[in-house]
Amino acid sequence: MSASLQTPTSTVKRGANRASYDVELVHKILDDTLLCHIGQQMNGQVFVTPTCHWREGDYLYWHAHSKARNTHGAVKEGQKVCINVCELDGLVLARSAFHHSVNYRSVTLFGVPEPIEDYDEKMRHFKLFVDKVSPNRWDSLRPVKDIEVKATGLVRIKIEEASVKVRAQGALDDDEDFDWPVWAGVLPLEKQWQAPQQNDDQTQDYPAPTAPHAK
Amino acid sequence: MSASLQTPTSTVKRGANRASYDVELVHKILDDTLLCHIGQQMNGQVFVTPTCHWREGDYLYWHAHSKARNTHGAVKEGQKVCINVCELDGLVLARSAFHHSVNYRSVTLFGVPEPIEDYDEKMRHFKLFVDKVSPNRWDSLRPVKDIEVKATGLVRIKIEEASVKVRAQGALDDDEDFDWPVWAGVLPLEKQWQAPQQNDDQTQDYPAPTAPHAK
Ligand SMILES: Cc1cc2nc3c(=O)[nH]c(=O)nc-3n(C[C@H](O)[C@H](O)[C@H](O)COP(=O)(O)OP(=O)(O)OC[C@H]3O[C@@H](n4cnc5c(N)ncnc54)[C@H](O)[C@@H]3O)c2cc1C
Ligand SMILES: Cc1cc2nc3c(=O)[nH]c(=O)nc-3n(C[C@H](O)[C@H](O)[C@H](O)COP(=O)(O)OP(=O)(O)OC[C@H]3O[C@@H](n4cnc5c(N)ncnc54)[C@H](O)[C@@H]3O)c2cc1C
Ligand code: HEM
Ligand code: HEM
Repeated sequence: MSASLQTPTSTVKRGANRASYDVELVHKILDDTLLCHIGQQMNGQVFVTPTCHWREGDYLYWHAHSKARNTHGAVKEGQKVCINVCELDGLVLARSAFHHSVNYRSVTLFGVPEPIEDYDEKMRHFKLFVDKVSPNRWDSLRPVKDIEVKATGLVRIKIEEASVKVRAQGALDDDEDFDWPVWAGVLPLEKQWQAPQQNDDQTQDYPAPTAPHAK
Repeated sequence: MSASLQTPTSTVKRGANRASYDVELVHKILDDTLLCHIGQQMNGQVFVTPTCHWREGDYLYWHAHSKARNTHGAVKEGQKVCINVCELDGLVLARSAFHHSVNYRSVTLFGVPEPIEDYDEKMRHFKLFVDKVSPNRWDSLRPVKDIEVKATGLVRIKIEEASVKVRAQGALDDDEDFDWPVWAGVLPLEKQWQAPQQNDDQTQDYPAPTAPHAK
């Protein structure tokens, strides 16, 4: 069994039968996705910012402008942010309105963001990020400039306080409703990469990019 | 021109060229989507909860258990929550790592949640919600019971303080990089409803459900 990320804050109370704290499952959901939602507070107001993430080992990374709220702002305040990453996998249509639901995979993480300031380490992470988004792309790109490294804020949280909730099953109606005459089941939702659309301003054809594993 | 939802808190500073405060565009993005991320704080800690939403007029609605954090909890605290709704529409692959980006539609809303407690009004909203999820489904369902109405918390915020950011274009590289020999453009991502999966425990076939407009 792999390590547990359960703490008092990350303990699921509602729907605890769907909960897990397994570090490998957390890593898998983070690696299968591109987008997270970062929650933080500033001057008493909560803000939620959609942001792209990537993972290396026990850390979750993201980037923005070096003066942005969710990089510079979050580090300066030293606060524990809350990040959710989830995929909506389908609609669950029951015989009763009450038992309607959705199928999903969802991770909630808590952690205090720390900045990555070392030049080489930032560069190494830009490569990890770019190659997550399109495998092997980094080596074909115009090299990153010093001024770009400086303009970019890079932060991470340690993945050590987190929870997973997963629902992946059909409709769960009350026993006495099984014969109610209406279709019950799941309407699955899937994401698919479409044909790449080359920039108008390119006058030559180049090999089309590789789609990422994550969606 | 329709009304503006711009306030000091909802004013976009980073990437202001992508911003809008147009109420009709906000409504459209809310109606095209199923999932929002609700940010709130309790005892000094921020929490982000993925939740399904629906809209009627100038209000955004959601539901959960009547004792859940994002219904009961949010109302009790009387705090202004922050809600983001966004769709990732594609990856933007530039000639330089620095100009990589994503195409998206994103709304951020601020508001103080108010509870809906009237029995008939709750019932009316359950119908709106169910029929958003699968048009005309409500009338075919086993009727909602009083105990179910009681167990369900229903809240709304007025849509009056909000911002939109939209990116929908190709890669924007620096002029001097236009001839860099690598493919540049957009890798579009789309969601598609798959074939409905009927529950194993149904012994009869019924007409398959209608997929929703929202995704
Ligand atoms: C799918 C997706 C992925 C993204 N990935 C990244 C990323 O990896 N790195 C990155 O830097 N940015 C990313 N963004 C943009 C990000 O959400 C923020 O807009 C950006 O980081 C600036 O945040 P800020 O708080 O510094 O902005 P500010 O301009 O200071 O925010 C001020 C106000 O602008 C509004 N606002 C800010 N962001 C949004 C938004 N996304 N939608 C609607 N209103 C908004 C809010 O009302 C906010 O209170 C992504 C956006 C989307 C939708
Ligand atoms: C796509 C999607 C749509 C959803 N729509 C709805 C909806 O419309 N109505 C509804 O009631 N619920 C919905 N949920 C479930 C919702 O996210 C919460 O799990 C639920 O509302 C209970 O929240 P709570 O704060 O009361 O839970 P609590 O159990 O009190 O939360 C305690 C801790 O459990 C963990 N936790 C809670 N929720 C999640 C989660 N989603 N993923 C990972 N960890 C979690 C966190 O660590 C949290 O701090 C949806 C979930 C997903 C992924
Ligand atoms: C029509 C579409 C509906 C959808 C998509 C939906 C979705 C959901 C989801 C995803 C949850 C969270 C369950 C979990 O944690 O895994 C939930 C909880 C809940 N829903 Fe719904 N729901 C719908 C309609 C309704 C209706 C009409 C009612 C009331 C009549 C209702 C009452 C509840 C209650 C009480 C909970 C809390 C369960 C708990 O935490 O113990 N739902 N719903
Ligand atoms: C590889 C994939 C990358 C993706 C998908 C990506 C995505 C994004 C997105 C979506 C934004 C927000 C822009 C907006 O508000 O519309 C952003 C901002 C930014 N990105 Fe990236 N990025 C990537 C790589 C990089 C790299 C490698 C660097 C640095 C070398 C970088 C530097 C920046 C900076 C500085 C900003 C802030 C722009 C501003 O707010 O003015 N990005 N990125």
